[in-house]
Amino acid sequence: MAKREELAAAIRRCSLAVEKRIAEILPKQADDALSECLWYHLGAGGKMIRPALCVLTCEALGGEMESALDFAAAVELLHNALLVHDDIEDGDEMRRDQPALWVKYGIAHALNTGDYLLGAAYGAVLGTRGSAELKGKLITAFNDAFMRTVEGQALDIRFRADPAFTLEKYQRMVELKTGYYLAVGMVGGAMIAGASDEAIGRLWRFGTYAGPAFQVRDDVLDLTPGKGRGGKIGSDIEEGKASILYAHALTTASPDDRRRLVHIMSLPRKSTAPEDLRWVMALYQKCGTPDFARRYSQERLALAKAEIRALPLAKDELLTALTDYVIERRT
Amino acid sequence: MAKREELAAAIRRCSLAVEKRIAEILPKQADDALSECLWYHLGAGGKMIRPALCVLTCEALGGEMESALDFAAAVELLHNALLVHDDIEDGDEMRRDQPALWVKYGIAHALNTGDYLLGAAYGAVLGTRGSAELKGKLITAFNDAFMRTVEGQALDIRFRADPAFTLEKYQRMVELKTGYYLAVGMVGGAMIAGASDEAIGRLWRFGTYAGPAFQVRDDVLDLTPGKGRGGKIGSDIEEGKASILYAHALTTASPDDRRRLVHIMSLPRKSTAPEDLRWVMALYQKCGTPDFARRYSQERLALAKAEIRALPLAKDELLTALTDYVIERRT
Repeated sequence: MAKREELAAAIRRCSLAVEKRIAEILPKQADDALSECLWYHLGAGGKMIRPALCVLTCEALGGEMESALDFAAAVELLHNALLVHDDIEDGDEMRRDQPALWVKYGIAHALNTGDYLLGAAYGAVLGTRGSAELKGKLITAFNDAFMRTVEGQALDIRFRADPAFTLEKYQRMVELKTGYYLAVGMVGGAMIAGASDEAIGRLWRFGTYAGPAFQVRDDVLDLTPGKGRGGKIGSDIEEGKASILYAHALTTASPDDRRRLVHIMSLPRKSTAPEDLRWVMALYQKCGTPDFARRYSQERLALAKAEIRALPLAKDELLTALTDYVIERRT
Repeated sequence: MAKREELAAAIRRCSLAVEKRIAEILPKQADDALSECLWYHLGAGGKMIRPALCVLTCEALGGEMESALDFAAAVELLHNALLVHDDIEDGDEMRRDQPALWVKYGIAHALNTGDYLLGAAYGAVLGTRGSAELKGKLITAFNDAFMRTVEGQALDIRFRADPAFTLEKYQRMVELKTGYYLAVGMVGGAMIAGASDEAIGRLWRFGTYAGPAFQVRDDVLDLTPGKGRGGKIGSDIEEGKASILYAHALTTASPDDRRRLVHIMSLPRKSTAPEDLRWVMALYQKCGTPDFARRYSQERLALAKAEIRALPLAKDELLTALTDYVIERRT
């Protein structure tokens, strides 16, 4: 098992290289509204876990960091495009401890900047050095991941406060919304390293296990002051978010409790009273919902780990260490 | 010269084939929010000029319609993605004689549906049959056109009511925003037909002459009741739009008139009084602005025509007839 410091050094090495590549792809321009918007958002940083997963997967399967940098940059740019658009869609006003792009520059500039980040992401994929066949595989995987993520987002919006929401619907939504997008950087890194179709299949499956597991952990964290929203509890309930908690309680509570739950979830964000929040949290406890969600998350993380353990790793155990680290924390 | 009926039949033939391809790419799903949004927008139709330009360019340069259909569908999907996002950005409430997608389903679903249309467009480019090299050329051209269009849109938003707006800035903005996006279908059709780099260069130039020419014609039309906005005149003035009229008047009017012009352009849409509109329109006349704009448009259309006339057309003169038709009317 690689030491924690070795892993931290590897993440730093990837971050610096990918940040440099992104700065080459999107050079800062003076007196340019688009560049100002791009760097307002990008300059606030990010954990750079996805590009690190891309580079370390490539290296662990026998490739070189340099050859994976364009794809790693593409994945980070896609991540940022989705954040910029999602913040508009969800009405989230803060991002990375500063006002979200749409709050600072208006919806028009923010939406358009998200589009540009998307274009830049596709451009970065196409910038990968290699055969036309490799590029074709990379761009197809990238586009598939983008479309599935957007499909999942459509379900997420659709299922808000939906009285007919179920665990099956949650599962479909969360796999689409989080799974492919988590996996695609690793899949691209593996393709660049010349990995087998079997290894690539395992990485896609890693994403569809781990992505939902993280999302569920996030859903549960909303019941505690630990979600980085300034100690706020129950934001997801105020938003009527289609969380695993809502899905589980809706399918286990009594008809009367279900009706009241749906009513509270469908209230506009600012009309949800503190006693409504308390009632929903008590209902979740009564239904055993947080325990159910924790078990669901743990089961999926074990499956995700197993996929990484089964990879034919060539170089070292940094990838295993990174996925373990990611699994312990959150992307 | 091909007869008008022959051209109309050719456009119908392209439209039907491309509509069929789009329906295969995005099959309608029952009880699916994303599909409902997609087809609410797509089902309202469109003039299908861009896909017809793609197919007829391919045929005129010796290719087959069938081989160009995926790219033609991609161009139409890109066009629709941009319309969906632009309507949100510009606050336009009507599209194709029905409420715009964001008005009907909300900003969250509309933004996300635009993203999906983009993904579907890239997917359609990748669906083109042919060598990996051809696909690489197509997707690179497509992505370049998308990014330049978005760059132009950023300038368009930035230059609204800008007191330092100039004709040079207008030119840069409008070429980016309209030129590449008009040309890319034709460029793709030509690539699929195996056309020379010289022919492809001519098609890009066609776009960067004709796109701005159409936009300028559109700007001038805003001064007449003919723009299809229910007889409304001067909407662009209410919006503070960075039109060629604004650029020209700003650079020719007296300092006092300039100040008042900038003030009126910067008023919120609903605060612009009828006498403000009348004053701006009178100023445009005093500066000779509409005549300047008409000359600008005509010069550019002549240059655009010359590029098409210089193409090594293999099959028939339908492409010439179509571009003439497009030039006479508007895309």
